[in-house]
Amino acid sequence: MSEYTLRVIGHVESVLAERAAAPRQPDEGAPDAWLVFDDCYAPALDGLVPGADVLLFTWLDRTDRDTLTVHPRGEAARPRAGVFATRSPDRPNPIGLHEVHILAVAGTRVHVRNLEALDATPILDIKPLLTPDR
Amino acid sequence: MSEYTLRVIGHVESVLAERAAAPRQPDEGAPDAWLVFDDCYAPALDGLVPGADVLLFTWLDRTDRDTLTVHPRGEAARPRAGVFATRSPDRPNPIGLHEVHILAVAGTRVHVRNLEALDATPILDIKPLLTPDR
Repeated sequence: MSEYTLRVIGHVESVLAERAAAPRQPDEGAPDAWLVFDDCYAPALDGLVPGADVLLFTWLDRTDRDTLTVHPRGEAARPRAGVFATRSPDRPNPIGLHEVHILAVAGTRVHVRNLEALDATPILDIKPLLTPDR
Repeated sequence: MSEYTLRVIGHVESVLAERAAAPRQPDEGAPDAWLVFDDCYAPALDGLVPGADVLLFTWLDRTDRDTLTVHPRGEAARPRAGVFATRSPDRPNPIGLHEVHILAVAGTRVHVRNLEALDATPILDIKPLLTPDR
């Protein structure tokens, strides 16, 4: 089997509307945002609490999946590198990985700090940061 | 759009053959393994070098995608939690995230230390660890 189908479990709500406006990293001015999950996933959210730091997986849906090499950070003066050696959003499987801090949880809506994903970005998964006992 | 299609870009070669034998975390006895990429992705590997620590994304293909709550680490005495608050491989989108150290690179084969993924697990992506200049 060479293909698998992702299920979109929710979407990002953010003031970031365009890729050109998005910061490249969360510490470069990313705004707070809401993660809005489909109601059917409410049971899977049990245990996510304000104050937790989690890994958010998104699908970067406004990217080019056929790009294999890039100039890092889009700087033409830097030599091209393979996308797997960079964080370029253009790559065969544009999975976004974001470490976020949970500010609030309201039903299936989760408010997080400093998220560099665009408005309406599909959500794929959330995992706790690696700890030995989870 | 509520579904997206993943492209399998390679597979894990490992002595770990069955889920029951797999450690839950890499520091619990995971063996070294090979990442074998499809030839067409060779350009995307440029810049991956021995000694680097990278994030490997896999598709945990022997899992149950309809599980929404679990007993953490399978311990029945622990109260059930939502899968998004755990590292359970059973979850709606079973994306495996592994921090691995590159031991060697030979063409489109990459040797890595301590990988808890099973033999033949599909590979989706590799990213460098978060650093400000990539």
